[in-house]
Amino acid sequence: MTELAEVEKQELLYRGKAKEMYTTNYPDILWVHYLDQVTALNGKRKVQMADKGKTNCAISTQLFTDLRNQGIENHFIKQIGPTDQLVQRVKIIPLETVIRNSASGSFVKRYQTEYLQEFAQPVIEFFYKNDALDDPFLNDDDALALELATREQISKIRQIALQVNQHLIKIFEKINVQLVDFKLEFGITNTGDVILADELSPDNCRLVDMQTKQSLDKDIFRQGLGDMVPVYEEILQRLLHSEEA
Amino acid sequence: MTELAEVEKQELLYRGKAKEMYTTNYPDILWVHYLDQVTALNGKRKVQMADKGKTNCAISTQLFTDLRNQGIENHFIKQIGPTDQLVQRVKIIPLETVIRNSASGSFVKRYQTEYLQEFAQPVIEFFYKNDALDDPFLNDDDALALELATREQISKIRQIALQVNQHLIKIFEKINVQLVDFKLEFGITNTGDVILADELSPDNCRLVDMQTKQSLDKDIFRQGLGDMVPVYEEILQRLLHSEEA
Ligand SMILES: Nc1ncnc2c1ncn2[C@@H]1O[C@H](COP(=O)(O)OP(=O)(O)OP(=O)(O)O)[C@@H](O)[C@H]1O
Ligand SMILES: Nc1ncnc2c1ncn2[C@@H]1O[C@H](COP(=O)(O)OP(=O)(O)OP(=O)(O)O)[C@@H](O)[C@H]1O
Ligand SMILES: [Mg+2]
Ligand SMILES: [Mg+2]
Repeated sequence: MTELAEVEKQELLYRGKAKEMYTTNYPDILWVHYLDQVTALNGKRKVQMADKGKTNCAISTQLFTDLRNQGIENHFIKQIGPTDQLVQRVKIIPLETVIRNSASGSFVKRYQTEYLQEFAQPVIEFFYKNDALDDPFLNDDDALALELATREQISKIRQIALQVNQHLIKIFEKINVQLVDFKLEFGITNTGDVILADELSPDNCRLVDMQTKQSLDKDIFRQGLGDMVPVYEEILQRLLHSEEA
Repeated sequence: MTELAEVEKQELLYRGKAKEMYTTNYPDILWVHYLDQVTALNGKRKVQMADKGKTNCAISTQLFTDLRNQGIENHFIKQIGPTDQLVQRVKIIPLETVIRNSASGSFVKRYQTEYLQEFAQPVIEFFYKNDALDDPFLNDDDALALELATREQISKIRQIALQVNQHLIKIFEKINVQLVDFKLEFGITNTGDVILADELSPDNCRLVDMQTKQSLDKDIFRQGLGDMVPVYEEILQRLLHSEEA
């Protein structure tokens, strides 16, 4: 991985809702292209949004770099151009890992708790990453029964997720933003290690401005409140500014 | 609890879908009356069924007694008359604990697995016992965040549930019945201990005849296949017969 200048984009491996993944001339390196597209309701609503790819790519680069600096291993290698990244190819574990610091989204819906009620301890929830099943909620025993991960992998995911949470809370606190909840994906490297993968952007986080209490994330879109890119841009600018300080 | 002959039924504490709970002249003893009634879809369908109360009361007495003989503490004190029991009053923990040995019901629905696919390890799932919310599925972190139980209580529930499962599997195996899954409720005694409570009957178990593969439980009713009392009676007779052997 020293000769990264030579990395060439090859064939499209997967076109997702937010990103395209390409193989490269290195078997262990994928080329990620962030799309100017946003979806909700598991893809049922889909809209093009200028500059979203660029903004999410930059935020993700920033946060993966911050986490690496804190000692949290992840798939990020480097950014190449405004909307693209090189990442370490992993076998994605089909568990969407949600970390909640306060109540929002499906938690409030399921248990009718107050929006933004704070939890004494972070709550971790797993969802089975399976579009055909609509990403159903499951617990550790279910994940084991469905053979989605081993007990050791689940315990590793939980451990990394809590570390990521601690760091992200601090990073966002510095820019006056409350980290309500977020979704992570993990993958298995060719040496069998579990590492953080996918993306870290306001598409996968719930962020609330500490002063105005406004949503600074995909909830703007989910609630039909229009273009969220200016808000994502604002997050990016605050993050970059925070780094300089 | 030596003078149980003197126990008197006092006021109705709770009229549930399957049982009535009455206070007695002993603050720590409740009088349970099993109803000739069956419901499905969280009470939305309700039907009267002669002799169901009597049969479930007898099965429950039998199984609670068997578990006590195996060293598993539970709320059962004694049966009084054909449809009634005395039980130790507890504070019910609002978690319905489901133990699954093979796939059925909501598990199959959620994850589209094959009916009766066997699990390598028993799967434990918790549901928040809350009719207004329709008893939603939750995980340990959710239960802690909602303050439904302490971490110690959850771990105790899990431990007892697995023991109960081991014994019930054997008890049903002896009578040619496969224990697919079942639901337990636990309560806290006035000394702070977590013990098994509620009932143990085919209303709360999925039982399949090992030869014919027919359902011998409430699924008969859920699937609109009519009167299930003869089948419950059959289970009771096999259990009583098994004991004599
Ligand atoms: N390092 C990696 N190696 C292999 N695959 C990855 C890696 N990082 C992320 N992925 C996968 O690449 C895809 C990214 O595309 P995108 O986020 O657009 O998917 P998506 O539409 O959200 O669909 P999905 O529901 O599959 O996540 C995801 O399936 C993600 O799990
Ligand atoms: N030992 C006990 N002490 C106190 N309450 C008990 C005990 N055993 C069972 N219960 C409670 O008594 C009620 C039994 O009634 P029934 O099984 O008909 O309720 P239900 O209709 O299933 O309603 P629910 O959804 O509340 O269980 C349940 O709420 C159960 O939790
Ligand atoms: Mg994605
Ligand atoms: Mg009940």
